[in-house]
Amino acid sequence: MSTTEMLHAHPRAEGPLVDVIARCIDACRDCVETCIACADACLAIEELGDLRRCIRLDLDCVEICGAAANVLSRPRADEAWAVRSIVEAARDVAERCGAECEKHASQHEHCRVCAEACRRCERASAELLAAL
Amino acid sequence: MSTTEMLHAHPRAEGPLVDVIARCIDACRDCVETCIACADACLAIEELGDLRRCIRLDLDCVEICGAAANVLSRPRADEAWAVRSIVEAARDVAERCGAECEKHASQHEHCRVCAEACRRCERASAELLAAL
Amino acid sequence: MSTTEMLHAHPRAEGPLVDVIARCIDACRDCVETCIACADACLAIEELGDLRRCIRLDLDCVEICGAAANVLSRPRADEAWAVRSIVEAARDVAERCGAECEKHASQHEHCRVCAEACRRCERASAELLAAL
Amino acid sequence: MSTTEMLHAHPRAEGPLVDVIARCIDACRDCVETCIACADACLAIEELGDLRRCIRLDLDCVEICGAAANVLSRPRADEAWAVRSIVEAARDVAERCGAECEKHASQHEHCRVCAEACRRCERASAELLAAL
Repeated sequence: MSTTEMLHAHPRAEGPLVDVIARCIDACRDCVETCIACADACLAIEELGDLRRCIRLDLDCVEICGAAANVLSRPRADEAWAVRSIVEAARDVAERCGAECEKHASQHEHCRVCAEACRRCERASAELLAAL
Repeated sequence: MSTTEMLHAHPRAEGPLVDVIARCIDACRDCVETCIACADACLAIEELGDLRRCIRLDLDCVEICGAAANVLSRPRADEAWAVRSIVEAARDVAERCGAECEKHASQHEHCRVCAEACRRCERASAELLAAL
Repeated sequence: MSTTEMLHAHPRAEGPLVDVIARCIDACRDCVETCIACADACLAIEELGDLRRCIRLDLDCVEICGAAANVLSRPRADEAWAVRSIVEAARDVAERCGAECEKHASQHEHCRVCAEACRRCERASAELLAAL
Repeated sequence: MSTTEMLHAHPRAEGPLVDVIARCIDACRDCVETCIACADACLAIEELGDLRRCIRLDLDCVEICGAAANVLSRPRADEAWAVRSIVEAARDVAERCGAECEKHASQHEHCRVCAEACRRCERASAELLAAL
């Protein structure tokens, strides 16, 4: 199953937004998965230092992008605009978390991978906001 | 334990925002609890009709206000502003959900109770946004 | 609003289990709230050491007890037994997290408060399991 | 990024369990995604009837399999057994939800797709439980 297929099987999902919503859902879920693992991998580092901020942002990202993905998975026909503020929140936290992870990307592979997932989530959220 | 006590025991929670944050956390969690029960009670009604929109908004409210409560439970010292967009999202969805529940409040006790919880969440979120 | 009131307003919530379910929901939500704050307060400690295990268990507790509270908030009439395995999971993780927090209770106030919330959650879950 | 890659980048993820854990995470997340969309698509059907039970089980599945996926995304080295009860809860709810969705599979495409996702989640959870 792909997110696009499931959305297309839904009686209220239609129109040109379906594909951009599906991309945003997938990017948010990927970001959640990566941030959970990044936070946990950071926690295993001996000298935490600035990684504390990375862990906190990872955990915020998990909450907010997870909520955005779940809300977006309920297509809302004529009320598409109603998702705007949660998608803005996802874009904001993914931007902050991605920027923090990038600082540690050269030292920690998990931060490099996570920074990329955050950046994809930021872009997909921005793309959806532009299309709403 | 109260939310205020736990926040006061936290090394990074300080300053005048602690109490307004604690109120917002409590209002968000109350809203989550009530919306889950409201959605489920609506689903048990024989003639759903407009209650479909109520159920969907309840479920959105659970996701977004739950995320807001969890994010706010991590005090962030000098980055308090960083919670702004998720608190805006909580205020928006609580406003919409409360307005929908109010339409059914005279017929369904659970919608009346839920409308009040949503309104408290909307006010507490607005109060926090004004204080940030 | 109290959890008990909301459950009593629900058309499918009835019988002697309502109060024990309400206590378990409240204990699970209190545990979630406390564990989020405990994990974040632990993270602010300079010398993490064994607190790493505490943080991980806190985060597991947030997920599992949060899921249990949400599932229990949907009364299920004749299928009350269906919640058994998620309540067992909540009891197990609250037991492990409480035991870990207790090790740090004399040094860290937030671990002491969290250990108590975990123990209440463990007991409320065990009480519900005994009543099912 | 794949779940397997992220787990392999984690300092504490090792040994023969990594691949079976990654499959279980992926199956749980797929189940969450599908169940949210299935519940919402069911809600749009004019004559709800038995679909009420389907919606409730979908929502339980979202909570429990979501918690399982997040907990499993934190590799725990020598404490792998500690995930047992949440994975059992995921297997149980996916089994029940899949069985309910199958009853409606011939009438509703979204239930057919969801039943398959639940069955994959049930099998992946059972496979992980056998390997622990």
